[in-house]
Amino acid sequence: MTPFSYRCTDCGRTYSRDEVRYLCPECGKGYHPGIPLLGVLEVVFDYEAIRRAFDRAQPDWNLFCPVEKEFHPPLPVGNTPLGRVDRLGAELGLSSLWVKNDGLNPSGSLKDRASFLVVAEARRLGIDLVVAASTGNAASALAAVCATTDTKALIFVPEKAPKAKLVQMVLYGAKVVPVKGTYDDAFALSLEYTAQRGGLNRNTAYHPLTIEGKKTAGLEIWAQLGYQVPEAILISVGDGVILGGVHKAFVDLQRAGLIDRLPRLIGVQAETSDAIHRYVETGVYSDAANPTTRADSISVTCPSNAHGARRAVLDSQGLTLTVTDDEILEAQALLAGRSGIFTEPAGATALAGLVKLQAGPNRLTGSGPVVILATGHGLKDVEAPLSRISIPAAVAPVLASLSL
Amino acid sequence: MTPFSYRCTDCGRTYSRDEVRYLCPECGKGYHPGIPLLGVLEVVFDYEAIRRAFDRAQPDWNLFCPVEKEFHPPLPVGNTPLGRVDRLGAELGLSSLWVKNDGLNPSGSLKDRASFLVVAEARRLGIDLVVAASTGNAASALAAVCATTDTKALIFVPEKAPKAKLVQMVLYGAKVVPVKGTYDDAFALSLEYTAQRGGLNRNTAYHPLTIEGKKTAGLEIWAQLGYQVPEAILISVGDGVILGGVHKAFVDLQRAGLIDRLPRLIGVQAETSDAIHRYVETGVYSDAANPTTRADSISVTCPSNAHGARRAVLDSQGLTLTVTDDEILEAQALLAGRSGIFTEPAGATALAGLVKLQAGPNRLTGSGPVVILATGHGLKDVEAPLSRISIPAAVAPVLASLSL
Repeated sequence: MTPFSYRCTDCGRTYSRDEVRYLCPECGKGYHPGIPLLGVLEVVFDYEAIRRAFDRAQPDWNLFCPVEKEFHPPLPVGNTPLGRVDRLGAELGLSSLWVKNDGLNPSGSLKDRASFLVVAEARRLGIDLVVAASTGNAASALAAVCATTDTKALIFVPEKAPKAKLVQMVLYGAKVVPVKGTYDDAFALSLEYTAQRGGLNRNTAYHPLTIEGKKTAGLEIWAQLGYQVPEAILISVGDGVILGGVHKAFVDLQRAGLIDRLPRLIGVQAETSDAIHRYVETGVYSDAANPTTRADSISVTCPSNAHGARRAVLDSQGLTLTVTDDEILEAQALLAGRSGIFTEPAGATALAGLVKLQAGPNRLTGSGPVVILATGHGLKDVEAPLSRISIPAAVAPVLASLSL
Repeated sequence: MTPFSYRCTDCGRTYSRDEVRYLCPECGKGYHPGIPLLGVLEVVFDYEAIRRAFDRAQPDWNLFCPVEKEFHPPLPVGNTPLGRVDRLGAELGLSSLWVKNDGLNPSGSLKDRASFLVVAEARRLGIDLVVAASTGNAASALAAVCATTDTKALIFVPEKAPKAKLVQMVLYGAKVVPVKGTYDDAFALSLEYTAQRGGLNRNTAYHPLTIEGKKTAGLEIWAQLGYQVPEAILISVGDGVILGGVHKAFVDLQRAGLIDRLPRLIGVQAETSDAIHRYVETGVYSDAANPTTRADSISVTCPSNAHGARRAVLDSQGLTLTVTDDEILEAQALLAGRSGIFTEPAGATALAGLVKLQAGPNRLTGSGPVVILATGHGLKDVEAPLSRISIPAAVAPVLASLSL
């Protein structure tokens, strides 16, 4: 761990580590559920210390971690494969296309990274209950990490979350409360819970270490590319916290003098869950009216990290775009059929965006690495692909009757 | 790659690499579907060459690989986490208990390792079709690996395979033939197919490189333990090929002079799918009469590698035991709730065996590392745990009405 302080991304005020917990005490006053978060705190390290200590030959990633190693839960999280997908790249006119398969985290999504770090923080603080609202993945992740420690997990999740995600979190031993309502309703309820009844709230972006946890995916991409900054990273966007986390990875590396530029961050949203996209395009925020997308993990009316995500896109000279559910499911099949990677609809949204981008005037043309971040496991929701494909009918085990 | 020849595990005859393809031409004459394989071929390397070249500081695992790297499919397979599970270890009276989570392979099971190598071999031979019979996981694995190459996959699978596995293999683009019958029927049909119509047959143990592929899990365990031979490895057993593969890993290491003893291999079968267990106990082989276990991946009447698995257990001074489906599902929940690892019923069978073992006279008492090999992802079959747990009812998002 490297010494750090918190800085409010809205007003710039700084705080020592234990002076604050969630939002900036000043800007956070203006926050209430139903609007994007105000007063999100950013971890600002002693970057000179990182620069001096970091050694590419034997990288110590704990230098970028804001919780001491002694509190880390005993679950191997992250270090997921980054694989080159030349067959897919050729079809998309890209000479160096890669997929970071974060579905291969223990609970099956990138969210394990955030849960890992918040549970570590809870242990440091001696808090034995971590509370979260989630579309499903963050909850499964929290439940999985808590299963390895004495920390308990309390989870608020929309009742319509895919069954596989619900099964996971219950089996891991979490206290699960399916909520009659949306993810946004669950988000508000969980904030109310921790405010009135206690526990550490792990809501995404609300607890600043969720961004730090997700950041590790970006650090790994850099290292796995041989310490090269990719040309672009495509990221599915719901709340905008994974985008913010990946951005923070490269910001930290730049501040530490380890890289000299940021990758372009390309955020892809589902057409009906497009609040951040419109915010980036117009500079004016408004909720997604009716987020009905099949990509449940990025289905959100009011993205908690809308402000941070917009800044990350602009800062990295990136862009955002939207795709339809048909395009998402087509991209899911394309990824599976070309690369052997089965990612859930939300994970495939990034590829759907790349397909759309490459067919239009803003297509990527450089020769540098382009990375698709596949955020969740396809087995989380096997009903989704069944809207496009079908299982062949069974036949008798007689060769003569087979026309193959 | 290190030069190698094939040796028949029954008669000991040796053959050069391209002189044989599946079984020993002599012993294989006596084989027909419906009995355990006769004439299984073992890869015998130039172990002196491995001994000279292997460097623990920079391990080159290709030394243990019987197919040249240029033919390897472009899919990252293996290198799954081995995590220490102290909470679980304490409950079972073991001071150093570990789980190798092979569900975190790309298609969600250890079978990716075998499919990877057989597809590499097909590419070397210039064969563009690989054919397999499978309870589901080997087929998903083959489909995933083929998706990354120009090789096609043709799959025979029992129609009752879990839906998630069927969805995977279809989405990956394989030609899938659900068979009205058992895994054993699918096995026979696939052999008939390749004999009469062509393609490379990937059936487990029938193609000798399936064992070599699965071997890599054992090599990784050794390396991940800091080049230490564990006291014991617990392995769920259906066909007996994963057990055979892990055994081969340590045999190779021993022959190369890199280790001086084998770990005890403990094979765990479902009570109704117990042909190998009875064979080990009595020395007399007979089929499992009615393998109805919920652990579909290890549900088999006539295990293809019965002879090899028995030899591996005896050679390693291991043992076998059986567990009930209730014990399997209990172990699945225990593993999830203590370690955050969600493995399918077949994967949890190994832990069920350890729980049973630790409660009896043969319990493990040493201080050396004990490893549970979790072979497949829990999300492959979310219906299974639902026979023990239930999803709580949904509530209105009103804090006052919650009694938590």
